[in-house]
Amino acid sequence: MSTPSLLILPGDGIGPEVMAEVVKIIDWYGENRGLTFDVTMDLVGGAAYDAHGVPLSDETMAKAQEVDAVLLGAVGGPKYDTLDFSVKPERGLLRLRKEMDLFANLRPAQCFDALADFSSLKKDVVAGLDIMIVRELTSGIYFGEPRGIITENNERVGINTQRYTESEIERVARSSFELAMRRNRKLCSMEKANVMESGILWREVVTEVGKDYPDVALSHMYADAGAMQLCRWPKQFDVIVTDNLFGDLLSDAAAMLTGSLGMLPSASLGAPMANGRPKAMYEPVHGSAPDIAGQGKANPIACILSFAMALRYSFDEGEEATRLEKAIEKVLADGVRTADLLGEEGATPVSTSEMGDKIVAAL
Amino acid sequence: MSTPSLLILPGDGIGPEVMAEVVKIIDWYGENRGLTFDVTMDLVGGAAYDAHGVPLSDETMAKAQEVDAVLLGAVGGPKYDTLDFSVKPERGLLRLRKEMDLFANLRPAQCFDALADFSSLKKDVVAGLDIMIVRELTSGIYFGEPRGIITENNERVGINTQRYTESEIERVARSSFELAMRRNRKLCSMEKANVMESGILWREVVTEVGKDYPDVALSHMYADAGAMQLCRWPKQFDVIVTDNLFGDLLSDAAAMLTGSLGMLPSASLGAPMANGRPKAMYEPVHGSAPDIAGQGKANPIACILSFAMALRYSFDEGEEATRLEKAIEKVLADGVRTADLLGEEGATPVSTSEMGDKIVAAL
Ligand SMILES: CC(C)[C@H](C(=O)O)[C@@H](O)C(=O)O
Ligand SMILES: CC(C)[C@H](C(=O)O)[C@@H](O)C(=O)O
Repeated sequence: MSTPSLLILPGDGIGPEVMAEVVKIIDWYGENRGLTFDVTMDLVGGAAYDAHGVPLSDETMAKAQEVDAVLLGAVGGPKYDTLDFSVKPERGLLRLRKEMDLFANLRPAQCFDALADFSSLKKDVVAGLDIMIVRELTSGIYFGEPRGIITENNERVGINTQRYTESEIERVARSSFELAMRRNRKLCSMEKANVMESGILWREVVTEVGKDYPDVALSHMYADAGAMQLCRWPKQFDVIVTDNLFGDLLSDAAAMLTGSLGMLPSASLGAPMANGRPKAMYEPVHGSAPDIAGQGKANPIACILSFAMALRYSFDEGEEATRLEKAIEKVLADGVRTADLLGEEGATPVSTSEMGDKIVAAL
Repeated sequence: MSTPSLLILPGDGIGPEVMAEVVKIIDWYGENRGLTFDVTMDLVGGAAYDAHGVPLSDETMAKAQEVDAVLLGAVGGPKYDTLDFSVKPERGLLRLRKEMDLFANLRPAQCFDALADFSSLKKDVVAGLDIMIVRELTSGIYFGEPRGIITENNERVGINTQRYTESEIERVARSSFELAMRRNRKLCSMEKANVMESGILWREVVTEVGKDYPDVALSHMYADAGAMQLCRWPKQFDVIVTDNLFGDLLSDAAAMLTGSLGMLPSASLGAPMANGRPKAMYEPVHGSAPDIAGQGKANPIACILSFAMALRYSFDEGEEATRLEKAIEKVLADGVRTADLLGEEGATPVSTSEMGDKIVAAL
């Protein structure tokens, strides 16, 4: 195979800072493991808007379609809050998801031993937690038509449409069952079938797909009960599959519960390309954190772990991914901490860049 | 004024059991405080379906429109899971909300001192917590048209529509600001204005209404960040206002976080009637809990506290409401516990009916 290609889109806020550390890791792999990538850097979000007046240029979009994997930092910030909806930073991210057809968003909610104390939850509730939320990412109310703000009877009306086709549900269900097979063979599907017809169809299709996976214990839960149960006893779950909007809230809540928000990566996967690799984008679960941007305070680990997911899911380099994860574990075990990983105890945090250097050293 | 009227709809699962204890309380008020109510009992949910083939009969609906307040237990259960969507138990509840136009659903998330240990959250995160979530209850994706499952290009498509008019947002915003004025003058509005146009309109209208309440500190948060922040540090909030669907998930998560799920009441309020009282329905936040129904294990306190909310919001009997709340506090302080309020320590729980009796005795 030719040299695998990567498109790096650092984005806004802390995005560029954390991505700079990923670049160090990529360089290390090139120099020490003969794993070289053909890397292109480009703009997305507010950064792209500032340069081109749009949150993702057509050229960047075309490049994203060609490469083997996209790495994204984060988008958005108060500077762009007053922009028109159509050019907000988020639209750049949403365009990538939609046009690359990245329908399965894998969001691990994992509690790192060294960090269990940071959770607002009791230690026994979260210690050792390791669940995976699969969020449908290309449909639902994020993209459904009609949408917009119209005028009716002399007042404005805000409209969005939740729409799911059978095949959209089927493919994300199938990815989730496959994942469950490689984990603990337990899948919980969440919707509001008691209130929404789209939830009824969701439940029916997931049940139908489940017949092909008799070894996976499938359950269904209303999304409000799911939110409750995630807060009460998250370890009851292994893989959760849910729609785009519920997945947005539930995966964020789950990530926060682990106490490891600055540590959590995600993968967004689509259909296989001609070379057998899936269309793929990798990004940290955390946002652009404008309040700490540019101060060298951000934790680069979530973004680095996203690259580890890329090694595993896009480049079949599971061993190298594990090497990277182990290096991070070692650095944490050594007590190296960015500011977000320190309590009020007053220990001295390392900077974003120092954390990156320590991880490189541990590799 | 004539004797105030109450329609009691115990519903399904543990509904009838917990409501029986409310009836004891109502009787006590008649005998001891000269507070008598004209009480009618009727069916809703699966119980109504079993009797009439619909989850709410037109007669019951008409009665609900006439009375001063409705008390509802809970609806739903596995027995009804396979029913057609149009006659599911939940449709009865949703019809009441919609036709009575109960647009403001007040859901306190409060942590009772005696129960702080039951939370999955650390004690300092939840002890003393007292926030109020106002959920819009008559619009949004719960009721928007078009909806249903259609066939398109040879496959089924599930469709629901989120729709909010300016006036729908305005009235629930106004209720929330009024409530914030009587509390700590802090209101946080949650939507997904970064992704949904209905969220953009929501944010604009709430901001506009806020101009009439300069003393209330208004903030806005994306609903996914809101879910995170509720899990991280709920005490940062006082009043939260959000739409029907986000409110469903966020208020359930918040309720669970307090550790007091079996203790939390809710009020659903509409516009004032001719007699000045608001249209109103009161119900516990917990569901029908089919797994423990009929065993005398359910905690009646959430339902009894819902009656206390009725005393306060419908009947202007704030002092009597406080008397009832104090009686409950006393019983809890005395160590009386239903099964849900006991840890694994092996103390003996009281039954649903014993808990009711103790509260009557404390009154
Ligand atoms: C930034 C925003 C558009 C995005 C979303 O809502 O999907 C984010 O919250 C996420 O979860 O990736
Ligand atoms: C029972 C169900 C229809 C209802 C809802 O979704 O609103 C419940 O979850 C609630 O929050 O009152």
